[in-house]
Amino acid sequence: MPTRSSSLSDRPLPLYQRLAAQYIHAMDVGALRVGERMPSVRELMRRHGVSLSTALQMLRHLEAAGHLEARQRVGYFVCHARGGALAPPSEPDLSQPVKGVDPAHFIGINAHISLLLDQGRQARVHSDMGSCTPPAALFDHNHLNRIVAKLLREDPTLLVHGRSLLANQGNHPDFQQAMARHALASGVRIAPADVLATTGNSEAVSLALAAVASPGDMVAVESPTYYGLLQVVESLQLQTLEIPCSPRTGISIEALELAFQTQPRLKAVVVVPELQMPLGARMPDAHKARLVALCAAHGAALIEDDSYGLFVESEQPVKPLKAWDSAGQVMYCQAFNKSLAPGLRQGWMNGGRWHGRVQMLKFAQSRNTQTLGQLIVAQVLGSSTHQRGLVKLRQQLRRQREGMAALVARYFPIGTRLGLPPGGLCLWLELPEGFSSAALFHEALAKGIRIAPGSMFSNSGRYEHCLRLACTHPVTAEMEEVCRVLGEMACAQLGQGVRG
Amino acid sequence: MPTRSSSLSDRPLPLYQRLAAQYIHAMDVGALRVGERMPSVRELMRRHGVSLSTALQMLRHLEAAGHLEARQRVGYFVCHARGGALAPPSEPDLSQPVKGVDPAHFIGINAHISLLLDQGRQARVHSDMGSCTPPAALFDHNHLNRIVAKLLREDPTLLVHGRSLLANQGNHPDFQQAMARHALASGVRIAPADVLATTGNSEAVSLALAAVASPGDMVAVESPTYYGLLQVVESLQLQTLEIPCSPRTGISIEALELAFQTQPRLKAVVVVPELQMPLGARMPDAHKARLVALCAAHGAALIEDDSYGLFVESEQPVKPLKAWDSAGQVMYCQAFNKSLAPGLRQGWMNGGRWHGRVQMLKFAQSRNTQTLGQLIVAQVLGSSTHQRGLVKLRQQLRRQREGMAALVARYFPIGTRLGLPPGGLCLWLELPEGFSSAALFHEALAKGIRIAPGSMFSNSGRYEHCLRLACTHPVTAEMEEVCRVLGEMACAQLGQGVRG
Repeated sequence: MPTRSSSLSDRPLPLYQRLAAQYIHAMDVGALRVGERMPSVRELMRRHGVSLSTALQMLRHLEAAGHLEARQRVGYFVCHARGGALAPPSEPDLSQPVKGVDPAHFIGINAHISLLLDQGRQARVHSDMGSCTPPAALFDHNHLNRIVAKLLREDPTLLVHGRSLLANQGNHPDFQQAMARHALASGVRIAPADVLATTGNSEAVSLALAAVASPGDMVAVESPTYYGLLQVVESLQLQTLEIPCSPRTGISIEALELAFQTQPRLKAVVVVPELQMPLGARMPDAHKARLVALCAAHGAALIEDDSYGLFVESEQPVKPLKAWDSAGQVMYCQAFNKSLAPGLRQGWMNGGRWHGRVQMLKFAQSRNTQTLGQLIVAQVLGSSTHQRGLVKLRQQLRRQREGMAALVARYFPIGTRLGLPPGGLCLWLELPEGFSSAALFHEALAKGIRIAPGSMFSNSGRYEHCLRLACTHPVTAEMEEVCRVLGEMACAQLGQGVRG
Repeated sequence: MPTRSSSLSDRPLPLYQRLAAQYIHAMDVGALRVGERMPSVRELMRRHGVSLSTALQMLRHLEAAGHLEARQRVGYFVCHARGGALAPPSEPDLSQPVKGVDPAHFIGINAHISLLLDQGRQARVHSDMGSCTPPAALFDHNHLNRIVAKLLREDPTLLVHGRSLLANQGNHPDFQQAMARHALASGVRIAPADVLATTGNSEAVSLALAAVASPGDMVAVESPTYYGLLQVVESLQLQTLEIPCSPRTGISIEALELAFQTQPRLKAVVVVPELQMPLGARMPDAHKARLVALCAAHGAALIEDDSYGLFVESEQPVKPLKAWDSAGQVMYCQAFNKSLAPGLRQGWMNGGRWHGRVQMLKFAQSRNTQTLGQLIVAQVLGSSTHQRGLVKLRQQLRRQREGMAALVARYFPIGTRLGLPPGGLCLWLELPEGFSSAALFHEALAKGIRIAPGSMFSNSGRYEHCLRLACTHPVTAEMEEVCRVLGEMACAQLGQGVRG
């Protein structure tokens, strides 16, 4: 790794730059770590005997170079970029036509994913960088447990009431009310009666697809996309059409437009507009409006997975696609596994103009969703305890993403590209061509480290040189060691010397 | 309704018969009600000044005529049959060939069922004889709530642990262990690792079908069958083949054999071998062995729904089909909604030789099942509190079935047929031809009474003159009034005078 002091030359630098170089050196040798707070302006003035303007100049210089990040009214913090060693991830090449599914790729992708998941499960794993579910320690379990006790005190017969044939088909009115209110806060109007409780998000997306597409029909997905979606699509005997996705702005509307013109069996589009999984892209509002209009024009269902919107770090309110939906074209799905309680598996959906069919399918295939989980989420979601917890969770995840990014910059091969998404649970790494993430997956697993190789996120084989790293754990010395080991294996594969 | 004293004539009867006639009269006028205990032998001797032998003769006479039922070491109880006013339900006519599905029936049956369910939901119902879920009062909710508190005390992070990617794919080892032990008690050997937790039974059967059949394939079901199954089959775009079912012994093995010979796309058979829903049939062990062998010979999956075995009143152990399965042909499904906690929606399955595919589908379509529900069931199932509760539940349900049967005998049209199943939650009534259960459904609903009309239990239109009455509520004066009203409407439809 090149030292970050390379900008220093023999000719005398201004004082603020010389001071800055000292701090960059401190970062390089690890005396100042990612996420740590810089001394205050007052302290800098005292410590180095410099003027206010020099201290400020130095801080702004470090910030401009990407070493520091200013947090309003708090101060400056060391962040990952440290000289921009890592290029941002590449944009998709839109000059190539959107390909239909290649049967050779389609057949067995599910088996391929299942095999990788299974190998990941069988192994003795001490460091799980594969799963993006936050660990239990990031949640306030006492708050949840108190709510369970309160619910059972208020209605002691909660667990023994069957509700499938009741008026709301097993959807508890308190849950429906809470979800409708929650949606309204982000600009989405859904009547409480049109809220359907689901088992997490997988069931929601699965029901949405089953409601609008028949075997042989085509579904457009982002590329790369969450492997679970590829599994659902295949399990319903549908075909996947992968649409290029920008790591910054999400699915390419142009490419999708072209797909509609050439694929008459394209019945649905599934997107994660906020913090796309795995890229972390955020779709601009203008894109959202266009996407909704495009799907409406083609009569296709727009299935929105809005489970990550709560993880976005933004001053602006985050508006789901559903907020632009006037024709009932958007099938809105949201789960609280990752933001509220991973053990609950509670989600919900509104199927837009297909909602009746979704309800019927849900009733036929799994009846109603357990009541207790619905009521827990209904109680927790609006509480100030949860709101505070969410702020802390986002901050913690940011520190972890930044920390992980810094470790990747330090230990991974030269030429590795990485974007730092504005929220979320993971990083998407692009390594130089020739790198095999599947090989790394197996090699790492043998050492007890689980990663998610790029090939899981597409049927196309296009992301073999990529991988997803979960940022759900604190960046400790152990984590640094894990990244060092992964980086070493990756460098060896590419014939690069060991870094860091 | 003819009085039960018609067996008395002018010529003097033996003393025991004259005494018996008094008691029959008391039953007819309601002075002695179904489920009440007869005076003891000693009390009869004292009250009527008769000998031991006369008192015993009278009791045995009443028992033989079906008015009383002896319960070992407890005494004699008034039971429903009261002179055998009701003929047993009719056996299916096996001389007619098993028909494939008539597309005209197939299309929209789901819509038909959904419509009936929906109308039933929308109405203001004060008496629900349509749903077969036992009311909350029949369960020991305090026991369940104490277990929840204990579980959260022992592992306070239970609700915030994500488990989908853990070794057991979200199936908690304690649950798996408990289910394997529970199955073993009824002669079924399943390794704990091969236990898959499901959302009730609907998800289990739905996964089983999706694992073995593709759109257009055929599924054999019992006729009549639970309407939920018809919905699942249609939602998966499969075709239903209805196999005649005896109200005593269940599905006709001969008819099924014939179906295998004529229907090459017959991929699966779904049965409820114990307390078939809605007939309440119990399949003899010899049939079970033949059925398993037949499906194995044709390579078809035998999907067993064993959710009602726990409701059987029998001295003999109840053995599921799975106990005869050596080739992995049986896909075993069981839910505890109705026997342990209707609000939990907890079930499990073992997919036999298709288990791997079932696991994959479950993972793709809804990931894992909530942990808390699994652990509650694991803890409750083996407890002596639950075992005692189950005995009481069975007794209570028997009293209710008997009480309802007596009311049907009293108020329903002459010619109504009814069997009293050896356990379970409902009665299946056959009314004389010409009766329309759909008409009764609508007429009753207008008066706040919900029933399940026969047409919901088949795609064939064969059971329009039948209906299912839930026996989940105590037989009170209100219940008698409900049955009187239903009987009156049914009699009016058939042009019979009002009874009772």
